[in-house]
Amino acid sequence: MSEEAHAFVPGHVTGFFTVDWDDDPTKAGSRGGGLALSDGVRVTVERAEETTIALDGTDIEMDAVDRVLDALRAKARVSAETDLPLGAGFGVSGGMALGTALAANAAFDRGLSYNELVTIAHGAEVQAGTGLGDVVAQARGGIPLRLEPGGPQYNYVDAVPARTRVEYHSLGELSTAEVIDGETEALTAAGERAISQVVREPTLSTFMRASRQFAREADLLTPELTQVIGEVADAGGDPSMAMLGETVFTLGTGLTDAGYDAAVCEVYPPGGTVEDGG
Amino acid sequence: MSEEAHAFVPGHVTGFFTVDWDDDPTKAGSRGGGLALSDGVRVTVERAEETTIALDGTDIEMDAVDRVLDALRAKARVSAETDLPLGAGFGVSGGMALGTALAANAAFDRGLSYNELVTIAHGAEVQAGTGLGDVVAQARGGIPLRLEPGGPQYNYVDAVPARTRVEYHSLGELSTAEVIDGETEALTAAGERAISQVVREPTLSTFMRASRQFAREADLLTPELTQVIGEVADAGGDPSMAMLGETVFTLGTGLTDAGYDAAVCEVYPPGGTVEDGG
Repeated sequence: MSEEAHAFVPGHVTGFFTVDWDDDPTKAGSRGGGLALSDGVRVTVERAEETTIALDGTDIEMDAVDRVLDALRAKARVSAETDLPLGAGFGVSGGMALGTALAANAAFDRGLSYNELVTIAHGAEVQAGTGLGDVVAQARGGIPLRLEPGGPQYNYVDAVPARTRVEYHSLGELSTAEVIDGETEALTAAGERAISQVVREPTLSTFMRASRQFAREADLLTPELTQVIGEVADAGGDPSMAMLGETVFTLGTGLTDAGYDAAVCEVYPPGGTVEDGG
Repeated sequence: MSEEAHAFVPGHVTGFFTVDWDDDPTKAGSRGGGLALSDGVRVTVERAEETTIALDGTDIEMDAVDRVLDALRAKARVSAETDLPLGAGFGVSGGMALGTALAANAAFDRGLSYNELVTIAHGAEVQAGTGLGDVVAQARGGIPLRLEPGGPQYNYVDAVPARTRVEYHSLGELSTAEVIDGETEALTAAGERAISQVVREPTLSTFMRASRQFAREADLLTPELTQVIGEVADAGGDPSMAMLGETVFTLGTGLTDAGYDAAVCEVYPPGGTVEDGG
């Protein structure tokens, strides 16, 4: 029995989404589309007397991770590292939940399947209120289109068959919980329109256009975001807003061309993976 | 509109499988388990006046690839390269079918989704009689467990959450068509027992044990295969037979430890991917 195991989970920027509540957290979730990113979360799980969680060297509390460890009957030191900004719409909490599930399964020899671990991480995120669709998208990799909500036993996930360079620039945080706990009918209707558009033509340019339209229709743009998106579009780029953070992302060199010192990564084809045998 | 596009599809060794016929080729297929490999097939699709297909520089005929191009209303020069041996149980034909679908969709701007392209490639393989489950497994990556047969709209795919080094040694070819067109009831029953075992404990060691047991029960081992598998097991390794080829594969350094000059690769987490934007 190994004492320690490692996992890597891609970051995930959501372009558009719906809110689909259900009493069963493995059926609840969201539909939508996003980009899995080569910038992600690396998680180490080490057996311990008491559970502690650290992110980039600082001890933190993270309900979703606690719930994952409880489900796996595991007490562990969870240490995560990421280059992604926090609370800015990159699925860091989803990445920590899924990475913890994958690594704890290996470190504690729990013998669960990939989909079982995704289900645990997805349910933990939903119950913690920190995300609805990131875990499922981060388990798929690529450019996932979540066409039915919930964990792997209930959902249906397709993808845009493409790869691309991605740039992002973060202005600040937005609370996922505040948005998804509020009035979400108009947001879900806008999300459904965006999904229909991308299902009709699953290409990168349609994806970005649907994302921009969703951000406007769901009324989530701050004045600062609107300004950056305008500047990138004026420079010939294809920008939108990461759901949910005060973050602009763009394909290719859109932010750089507009003069921003943007972070650069790319679409990451695989989903989250444990890095050890099992 | 790009004139040329590229895709990479991992190889796939099947450890155990069932045969599940259906009149609808998108519902037909197989259940089973295998390893997606970092050794795979790189496919280039280039618009052309007439369709031609080349593998490693030699012009060949490949029904599954023709069918994929027909479905996409495309005439193209398809050039594939692979380090994998042919007809030896590595899913080269499935890789060419899926790689052609992904690259042709990009080169001809067909605007289809990932699952639509997998469905086309899967149906083409089934109708060509060259494979039943490779395409679906090669679209998943990792260590796929195909729990329901058919293309993405009908199947259910889980996975063993692990990574590992893989070695293989090929002694010769076996005809997939001959086996799957023959009497498959006993084979399917053995495949179902193997699947149950791995679903109960989705780990690498259970996967290899179930694969060995399937090879014996389905009566597919040649005397040469039995000998190599015995030597690797005697040297402390964990070997089995690739379905369907006269090929031994093993985790870690099993074949090397037994004195074979084996090919070395590793489990490849992503599924087949187009390498261009779209």
